[in-house]
Amino acid sequence: MNGCIITIGDELLIGQVVNTNAAYLSRKLNELGVTIGRIITVPDKRKEILSEFSPAFKNYDAVVVTGGLGPTHDDITKDCISKFFNSKLILNKRLLASIKKMFERRHIPFAKNNISQGMLPDIAKALPNKQGTAPGILIEKSGKIFCAVPGVPGEMEFIVENSLLPFLQKKLKKASKKQIIKSKTLHTIGIAESLLFQKLGKMSYYEVKEKSGIVRLAFLPANFEVRIRITAISDNDKKAEKLLQSTILKLRHKAGNYIYSYDESPIEKVVGNLLLKNKLKLSAAESCTGGLVASKITDVSGSSKYFFDGIVAYTNKAKKKFLGVNQKTLKANGAVSEQVAMEMADGARKFSNSDIGISTTGIAGPTGATKDKPVGLVWIGYSDRKITFAKDYYFTRDRLRNKEMMSKMALELLRRQLLKL
Amino acid sequence: MNGCIITIGDELLIGQVVNTNAAYLSRKLNELGVTIGRIITVPDKRKEILSEFSPAFKNYDAVVVTGGLGPTHDDITKDCISKFFNSKLILNKRLLASIKKMFERRHIPFAKNNISQGMLPDIAKALPNKQGTAPGILIEKSGKIFCAVPGVPGEMEFIVENSLLPFLQKKLKKASKKQIIKSKTLHTIGIAESLLFQKLGKMSYYEVKEKSGIVRLAFLPANFEVRIRITAISDNDKKAEKLLQSTILKLRHKAGNYIYSYDESPIEKVVGNLLLKNKLKLSAAESCTGGLVASKITDVSGSSKYFFDGIVAYTNKAKKKFLGVNQKTLKANGAVSEQVAMEMADGARKFSNSDIGISTTGIAGPTGATKDKPVGLVWIGYSDRKITFAKDYYFTRDRLRNKEMMSKMALELLRRQLLKL
Repeated sequence: MNGCIITIGDELLIGQVVNTNAAYLSRKLNELGVTIGRIITVPDKRKEILSEFSPAFKNYDAVVVTGGLGPTHDDITKDCISKFFNSKLILNKRLLASIKKMFERRHIPFAKNNISQGMLPDIAKALPNKQGTAPGILIEKSGKIFCAVPGVPGEMEFIVENSLLPFLQKKLKKASKKQIIKSKTLHTIGIAESLLFQKLGKMSYYEVKEKSGIVRLAFLPANFEVRIRITAISDNDKKAEKLLQSTILKLRHKAGNYIYSYDESPIEKVVGNLLLKNKLKLSAAESCTGGLVASKITDVSGSSKYFFDGIVAYTNKAKKKFLGVNQKTLKANGAVSEQVAMEMADGARKFSNSDIGISTTGIAGPTGATKDKPVGLVWIGYSDRKITFAKDYYFTRDRLRNKEMMSKMALELLRRQLLKL
Repeated sequence: MNGCIITIGDELLIGQVVNTNAAYLSRKLNELGVTIGRIITVPDKRKEILSEFSPAFKNYDAVVVTGGLGPTHDDITKDCISKFFNSKLILNKRLLASIKKMFERRHIPFAKNNISQGMLPDIAKALPNKQGTAPGILIEKSGKIFCAVPGVPGEMEFIVENSLLPFLQKKLKKASKKQIIKSKTLHTIGIAESLLFQKLGKMSYYEVKEKSGIVRLAFLPANFEVRIRITAISDNDKKAEKLLQSTILKLRHKAGNYIYSYDESPIEKVVGNLLLKNKLKLSAAESCTGGLVASKITDVSGSSKYFFDGIVAYTNKAKKKFLGVNQKTLKANGAVSEQVAMEMADGARKFSNSDIGISTTGIAGPTGATKDKPVGLVWIGYSDRKITFAKDYYFTRDRLRNKEMMSKMALELLRRQLLKL
């Protein structure tokens, strides 16, 4: 089954809103086995919307539309559907009753314009929406599927998760299977895309035809990471899985040290699991990253089991007071230095009596550079009961990207220490 | 001038990557006066890419393409451009030299596959890329503009900012102007969309025709914020600006307290400016937000002028040691309580001798709830030299959303205190 996603909304075309709905829908539909061939974004204009419905419904088995289903003036998707399918809008009393009930529960007065939410094209089925008032709309015609959901992410996700996906799953089970596609993504960090490509040699070129099927590799670089997506295609499930696993093994052999995740876990989770496994407690001392290292670590549920505390020591005073950094060290080397990074990591560990201290001190930018210390420079310090050291890294001129990369690199340095790489 | 954006990449169609490039490009091009009529995402397949080039180049004045310009096998955009324009790929020696230089500067070996980065269609102009190796590609033909940039966000942004936008700006200045569209977005926080809608009364309904032009309002809810986009349309610049300003004034009158930003500044910048203006120093003490409040504050360049330090006191031990929270208070009320939030805020302020302390203690989830304390509960504490208090808020069941909303609400509480709202 192939599919097309149409996202409707002026806010997407003026760049005010990032189209996370398209990403969510693509991911969910792909996981189910629906290959998405196109994502199209159009404005809240009748003509433009209708001009996309025709080719999409003609060329794809499933069309999923988001946006423009609310109660206000710029919500015209339902009208367009009614016109496209030549199907009248009629009042669905049960639907309207359930919408009214929702308002009651929330102690919010029922505004008149919400009555339109109870109207549906007569060939459509309503998909319940417990997160809001606009139901999803499902139409089956000529062996094809057309579904419209609201644009508010929480509502869209509720309807897709609870109604659309189960419906499609049933449909797919009925269809025969010819080709099995298995996909997996590995995450690497600290290596440039071109170098990774070179390291992998022949493996990375085009698609590789094996006896049992086909293997494809794709490289996805983003902020200091390169993800490698492996796609294995075969005629049965076992063969495809075996192909996938043997490819992973080869990749591990060639670039294992750079691969931090085989299951899409972010690096903060990988590091957290290592700390947990080794029963180690961590403390963080941050200057340039301003709390982002701690925030990443605590993005993981259960991080309180291994994360003691973090100190955001933005001022020299705080570095001295909360981390015991020596005034002489600060004076002799400056706050952004190997020595201060080491004393910060030491201090974080000792003050909290934890096992490991990690620290960052650098120049996030855009100001603050000196002759010897450019914007993007960071010293990352590490301290445990046996060793203390610091390493320097050079990133970009952009403050937010620097904070992000510096924090990730601190986590990567932790990972490498914990794995003795 | 109207435009079309084509984003290329399998990763977008399987939902692995959110299409932030499309949002960035739409915003930047719109700001310049280029109306984006359509955004299309296609896979890394020659046939699919070429099938979109034709209608896009036919129907729009400017076509911007992202992705598929890297050095690996799945990067086929350049080949497609060469084919579409019937223009040979030739080696640009100056370009290749500058790419080699970049590798030298970074002390990274030059991989052979990077030579392809120096090839360009013979009718194209290279747009410099200081963030990576793939240059942008600019083609002018039949009075239309075709531009391709890499998919890595930092590289794409660099080229767009430094080459594409200045180029388009020149082009647009030459063109005549008929209709002036002025747009502005106000950010509100802490009020639901429907309540805001109600507060604004007639103003918020449909488009309002004034003597001097038309005013439109659009509401964009996202994570605890509602942005109001105002669009003023008139036949000359002055009238449009006046219309915009009078609408802003009306909105301020009806919902002023909820509007924190009139210039798209994020709340951390608004709060930072208030601290700077009042010469106040801030310290933060965080439990459930895990450093995110500090990280947001330090996202602003120059924040070292008003932000002293942050303590991420994840353990009770840290709350006692670094913030002076009383063991008795912890025992009697639990860590997630009004009293502890107040003592944390007090401690943050006093320990650093700063003017204001802000604190968070709550249950980010998904675990950790008790009978009286649900997931999503947060106590936000505030302390200055005169008063100390804490307020409770209830958010969602999702950990990352909770961290985000709790951090934003802490900043909003600060804003309201600083403005005495």
